[in-house]
Amino acid sequence: MKINCDMGESFGSWTMGMDEEVMPLIDMASIACGFHASDPLIMEHTVQMALAEDVVIGAHPGYPDLAGFGRRDLSLHPQELKAGLVYQLAALDGICRVNGTRVEYVKPHGALYNKMMRDEATMTIIMEAVRDFAPDCPLVVLATPGSEEISAKGREYDIEVWFEAFSDRAYDDEGRLVNRSQPGAVHQDIETIGQQVQQIINEQSVTTLSGKRIPIQADTICVHGDSQHALDSARHIRDIISSS
Amino acid sequence: MKINCDMGESFGSWTMGMDEEVMPLIDMASIACGFHASDPLIMEHTVQMALAEDVVIGAHPGYPDLAGFGRRDLSLHPQELKAGLVYQLAALDGICRVNGTRVEYVKPHGALYNKMMRDEATMTIIMEAVRDFAPDCPLVVLATPGSEEISAKGREYDIEVWFEAFSDRAYDDEGRLVNRSQPGAVHQDIETIGQQVQQIINEQSVTTLSGKRIPIQADTICVHGDSQHALDSARHIRDIISSS
Amino acid sequence: MKINCDMGESFGSWTMGMDEEVMPLIDMASIACGFHASDPLIMEHTVQMALAEDVVIGAHPGYPDLAGFGRRDLSLHPQELKAGLVYQLAALDGICRVNGTRVEYVKPHGALYNKMMRDEATMTIIMEAVRDFAPDCPLVVLATPGSEEISAKGREYDIEVWFEAFSDRAYDDEGRLVNRSQPGAVHQDIETIGQQVQQIINEQSVTTLSGKRIPIQADTICVHGDSQHALDSARHIRDIISSS
Amino acid sequence: MKINCDMGESFGSWTMGMDEEVMPLIDMASIACGFHASDPLIMEHTVQMALAEDVVIGAHPGYPDLAGFGRRDLSLHPQELKAGLVYQLAALDGICRVNGTRVEYVKPHGALYNKMMRDEATMTIIMEAVRDFAPDCPLVVLATPGSEEISAKGREYDIEVWFEAFSDRAYDDEGRLVNRSQPGAVHQDIETIGQQVQQIINEQSVTTLSGKRIPIQADTICVHGDSQHALDSARHIRDIISSS
Repeated sequence: MKINCDMGESFGSWTMGMDEEVMPLIDMASIACGFHASDPLIMEHTVQMALAEDVVIGAHPGYPDLAGFGRRDLSLHPQELKAGLVYQLAALDGICRVNGTRVEYVKPHGALYNKMMRDEATMTIIMEAVRDFAPDCPLVVLATPGSEEISAKGREYDIEVWFEAFSDRAYDDEGRLVNRSQPGAVHQDIETIGQQVQQIINEQSVTTLSGKRIPIQADTICVHGDSQHALDSARHIRDIISSS
Repeated sequence: MKINCDMGESFGSWTMGMDEEVMPLIDMASIACGFHASDPLIMEHTVQMALAEDVVIGAHPGYPDLAGFGRRDLSLHPQELKAGLVYQLAALDGICRVNGTRVEYVKPHGALYNKMMRDEATMTIIMEAVRDFAPDCPLVVLATPGSEEISAKGREYDIEVWFEAFSDRAYDDEGRLVNRSQPGAVHQDIETIGQQVQQIINEQSVTTLSGKRIPIQADTICVHGDSQHALDSARHIRDIISSS
Repeated sequence: MKINCDMGESFGSWTMGMDEEVMPLIDMASIACGFHASDPLIMEHTVQMALAEDVVIGAHPGYPDLAGFGRRDLSLHPQELKAGLVYQLAALDGICRVNGTRVEYVKPHGALYNKMMRDEATMTIIMEAVRDFAPDCPLVVLATPGSEEISAKGREYDIEVWFEAFSDRAYDDEGRLVNRSQPGAVHQDIETIGQQVQQIINEQSVTTLSGKRIPIQADTICVHGDSQHALDSARHIRDIISSS
Repeated sequence: MKINCDMGESFGSWTMGMDEEVMPLIDMASIACGFHASDPLIMEHTVQMALAEDVVIGAHPGYPDLAGFGRRDLSLHPQELKAGLVYQLAALDGICRVNGTRVEYVKPHGALYNKMMRDEATMTIIMEAVRDFAPDCPLVVLATPGSEEISAKGREYDIEVWFEAFSDRAYDDEGRLVNRSQPGAVHQDIETIGQQVQQIINEQSVTTLSGKRIPIQADTICVHGDSQHALDSARHIRDIISSS
């Protein structure tokens, strides 16, 4: 079980995330590509930080929407979305190359990630973009009860699919993340977070907000690094995974 | 003598340049990379247009300044400039790759181009960015009497340097382009434009605004495609070069 | 019957619209406020142009989305939308004031305009923004068979509502504009455009794409200035209205 | 002696400054206007926070450069700069008006502030913008030995000038702020900060980096709220001023 975290989400003079503290705790750094967050200099610093900690680098592309941090739906024409994805993957990969490394996976961000999980056409475009630019890179998607369908679609597009589970987000009964605006959507308690992780590892399941147990097969757990609390949770999860 | 032109400088719903009409007349398309103009979809359309006309594709990176079209000086930290250049070259190259081609040269845009010609430190950073990301790509700079020095610097950075002359821009006595804000900076008359091109080809020189003849060794002539007049000039230059 | 036109939709170095040619033909200039198009300098030039032709100035606020020209849906939090509307109205009004005039009406742009017509909550926020910042300014909305309801809502918010009809856009049977992506959505033929205007003036109705005649009460006709064709249409409409 | 602080410099999802904690300590809130930082919603929240603490609101306009936080020089055409200033002042004033208050002073930000202090033409444009849009608002500039000249220029433009001194920035012998990139440019020690404030209040002077004592007449002291340390300094300064 690998730990992944969204990284490099600062912008210009604005800092977001305790990247330096969280980098030693994770296995995979999903680095923002300048559309919803980050800029070329921050991308380069984040790549160098990941290299120093032997962390695998993934591209974390989003909608072109700094003001909304890529969390607002944006209806893009399919060709525009695909070109924008290739642009972001290539830009980060270029910064990786001049630093002696490469992008090794792709995980969409925010509203694009959510749209991909509920809209087949968006998933198709994302798979096409990965296949065309980075065919060796797995695409990271949400682990849900319907994972096998997505894997099959991945095989159709000649790309590998990895599934991620969330340590601190509540699930609904369809296995989707509960919207952040709902009460109870984000687990605050570190014990609860740790229990969700252990259940994912040991039982391949999560317990939904309504109390239902649903099966979840995850390759990676997503943690956050945007607060001291998130950092403490990440440390706890690192301990759980290292000792399991 | 190759003809190059700045291409793909539209943005979103705004059109700039008669790219479709000018593409068949040129040899090298310097395509904007989304910082001073263009966006991923326009970049892809422009790449496809260049492919259809067998035109060589170059990256045309600029300052991150859509509102100023990359024509305003912007003091960036050297590392920020370099990371931003790699980002732009890589993004365009990625869009080229998924369309079965590659970026084959680099020509900076606007205020960055001008700064590179008068500021050694900026030239160094640009050469480092090209060497690190695209070592096979020549860097296109302004042909001036001091060209040999720039070639020598290029050899130091293991990159090739190409020199471009301008067909419609007046030169000052140091061989620099006269600032657009000065009277007489831009030749309007097609005959004058044609004569400047022929003098560059036949005599390896230009006549400056003050009437002085200075030596200019050019590999390529820059034309424009932003008006019917520019298009007519480009046709005239295409005829001169094809018959010379 | 007043003629209104979207104006000042250029951005930086990019030009959109033949504002100089269209300004003498219209009564009301709906000026973009820098969010979906325009910038402070273009806003000021457009205000000065309107003053020179005695054209009434309206604010034309849109979603904060230059790349999408305000034509993409963007889900903003109600408070964010309202603050953004006040920001835009006030910014344009400020530029008007230093030029000795004022904003005299408000007409939302693009996706925001469309959302306002189908989403009551959005209409409410827009009315609140107008009431709070510019209570003397009428709000211009689409003339539809349901206009009376909107007028009543306007009275509730203490603002006046004006209704506009489109000269070159096809209507569906509910009296909405047919989406631009549909065939037949935009009338190309000047005679058709002229007939639609005459029918609106003489019979207070339009004939929909399906051939149905529906009642439309309009205070103003919207024309465009983004092409020679649009300009010719505007001239034709000016003639029809001046002689009616 | 009034305390002023730059406020509302967050942007979208990025937070900068401990505005809530610093607001009760200050007399004047210089609120960013969306060009170098802030957005309409953050502006509105900051205005409401200022109202709740009875803090006077000023406009803090900057260069249109979010990526550089308005700290990079940007050569704008004078008309463009003036229109952009009016735009920002008016936008913030609009948000103030709908919340029952007004902008009561103007203090330029960052690179624009620095340019104003060394470039007469920039000072002229700023004074024109204030005179034309907000003639009752004092313009806040850096207190230097040459203050009387600036006051005289202000009288010429019919605006009042207020002078501010910095509590935590070192001065050079000309009375300018030492550039942030220089060692010793920013005082870290709270005692040093407190002493500089007391010297400004009691002796109308500051001691420069080189040890020279130069006269400074200040109407207001600028504090910062971007760190716990800044907040502690602000509290210390509040105590000094309240007890002096």
